[in-house]
Amino acid sequence: MRAVTIADKALKFSVDSPEPEPGLGEVLVKVHAAGLNGADLLQVRGAYPAPPGSPADIPGLELAGEVVGLGPGVGRFGIGDRVMGIVGGGGQAEYAVVHERQLMPVPAGLDLVAAGGFPETFTTAHDAIVVQAGLRPGERLLVHGAAGGVGTAAVQIGRAIGASVVATTRHEQFDAQLEQLGAEVVTRPNEHHGFGPFDVVLELIGGENLGEDVKALATGGRVVIVGVGGGIKAELNLLALMSVRGRVLGTTLRSRPLEEKAATARAMEREVLPLVERGRLTVPIAKAFPAEEAEAAYAHFKQGGKFGKVILTF
Amino acid sequence: MRAVTIADKALKFSVDSPEPEPGLGEVLVKVHAAGLNGADLLQVRGAYPAPPGSPADIPGLELAGEVVGLGPGVGRFGIGDRVMGIVGGGGQAEYAVVHERQLMPVPAGLDLVAAGGFPETFTTAHDAIVVQAGLRPGERLLVHGAAGGVGTAAVQIGRAIGASVVATTRHEQFDAQLEQLGAEVVTRPNEHHGFGPFDVVLELIGGENLGEDVKALATGGRVVIVGVGGGIKAELNLLALMSVRGRVLGTTLRSRPLEEKAATARAMEREVLPLVERGRLTVPIAKAFPAEEAEAAYAHFKQGGKFGKVILTF
Repeated sequence: MRAVTIADKALKFSVDSPEPEPGLGEVLVKVHAAGLNGADLLQVRGAYPAPPGSPADIPGLELAGEVVGLGPGVGRFGIGDRVMGIVGGGGQAEYAVVHERQLMPVPAGLDLVAAGGFPETFTTAHDAIVVQAGLRPGERLLVHGAAGGVGTAAVQIGRAIGASVVATTRHEQFDAQLEQLGAEVVTRPNEHHGFGPFDVVLELIGGENLGEDVKALATGGRVVIVGVGGGIKAELNLLALMSVRGRVLGTTLRSRPLEEKAATARAMEREVLPLVERGRLTVPIAKAFPAEEAEAAYAHFKQGGKFGKVILTF
Repeated sequence: MRAVTIADKALKFSVDSPEPEPGLGEVLVKVHAAGLNGADLLQVRGAYPAPPGSPADIPGLELAGEVVGLGPGVGRFGIGDRVMGIVGGGGQAEYAVVHERQLMPVPAGLDLVAAGGFPETFTTAHDAIVVQAGLRPGERLLVHGAAGGVGTAAVQIGRAIGASVVATTRHEQFDAQLEQLGAEVVTRPNEHHGFGPFDVVLELIGGENLGEDVKALATGGRVVIVGVGGGIKAELNLLALMSVRGRVLGTTLRSRPLEEKAATARAMEREVLPLVERGRLTVPIAKAFPAEEAEAAYAHFKQGGKFGKVILTF
């Protein structure tokens, strides 16, 4: 089958990868689209090996497509169903086997290209701000790095569940689009003072942002760390954290075991897919590339200054 | 009445403080004993003013005594009842008015001197490790600074609810006593490696301990920061926190509003006082001083190398 593959820390497009076979509880998905994510870049560089049970040489943490094969014991889906989901790796290939409990149905109104860029970002955003940080209606959410995939998902989810949202991006050209997605205020990363205090801060940049994040917390506020492209170390003022009874949460989806990934998929089905069906959430797409142009897609993904997802289509 | 008072950042013992009057829902407590806490020292230095509604010049965050007067609407206690509780300040005086919902009954078997050193440390420990950090039976708890008041409370509570406890103290002379309280391992602050990973770390020292705390976390582990005598700033490795999906929680009791303090007292009545009645928890007392010797008591409290609480008696 055709697949994006990693060899010697370089990307290739291969046509002779072996087609995977579905095992117990697994389905074979003919992939239509698969989004790119930061972890794919790390994996290509050799800095972030695939978890056990996932293909070592095919990147891709999310996919959308059509069920074309059923392993023994599959009960949730049938041949021809439109599905999407998070995988431990191997999403950027023509076919992928996925345990059926990791998959969600693609809601009516979401096309398969957009669906390929939906699972990782919307699950990450929902899990981080709602499940982990417990964002409640009426609370105030700050999203740092709001123009990326997880950021645009978080702005929309925050707004859709009744929070008010302040978004930051270094790129002024996206201010209007972030306002359209539901941000009440869009500003630069170090200019959020005066718009808080915040109950939840979604930190997609990391590094020295953390100090100001903690200063901007309301009593009982939570900073949830999902991205660290801006630096992995930060100074934390413990007394400032204590004085607001604040919490700093680190989270990541990729390393979680099957049962926990499945739990995030069920939470998405309950809480987020109905919002997609009602037209409250969209998947902003920076650019979609045919899989043969994977190198160009990765190069585009690496650049700053995009709005939304980079997606490969098969 | 007789009270410990603060004037010009110095401690005095005064015999002419006005006796407080109980208001709606408040009781007048004749104080028998009142423990010293770190915040008292900060308050004497002028660095930690009493919260609104508490006496500005009388320190003391906890007390135990006898109900000798009832304000209108009091229903939980009657004259002569033995009570103890956390207060926003003013505990180190012969009489104190306290809202009845902040008070707990003193369980049979706990004398009033020990009871005077019970509320702040045991509530802080229980709230931090059980309520905030969610310590569960079978989990592994690390207590840094275990020989102090909150530390000895946390070691005992952790053990009594079915966790296994590793304790650190700089003072080897207390190792045997900490083992007697239920610590499985007692070691020095930087020598806890090999005894983890830990589900909950109670950080009573702060500062640069934090880096090692995060490294020692199990997946889903929580570091709860309650004391920062070792430094208020720390470097946090965000990627390390993400990789274990860890959480750093800051907490403090003193600044909480009445309704939240009352909630902690109800949680103590449900979960901790039954353990006292069953003889599972004791209050280690470093030394009790008559209130007239408050200066000596504070001097003793400031020294390191104590085991348990310093308590003033009236």
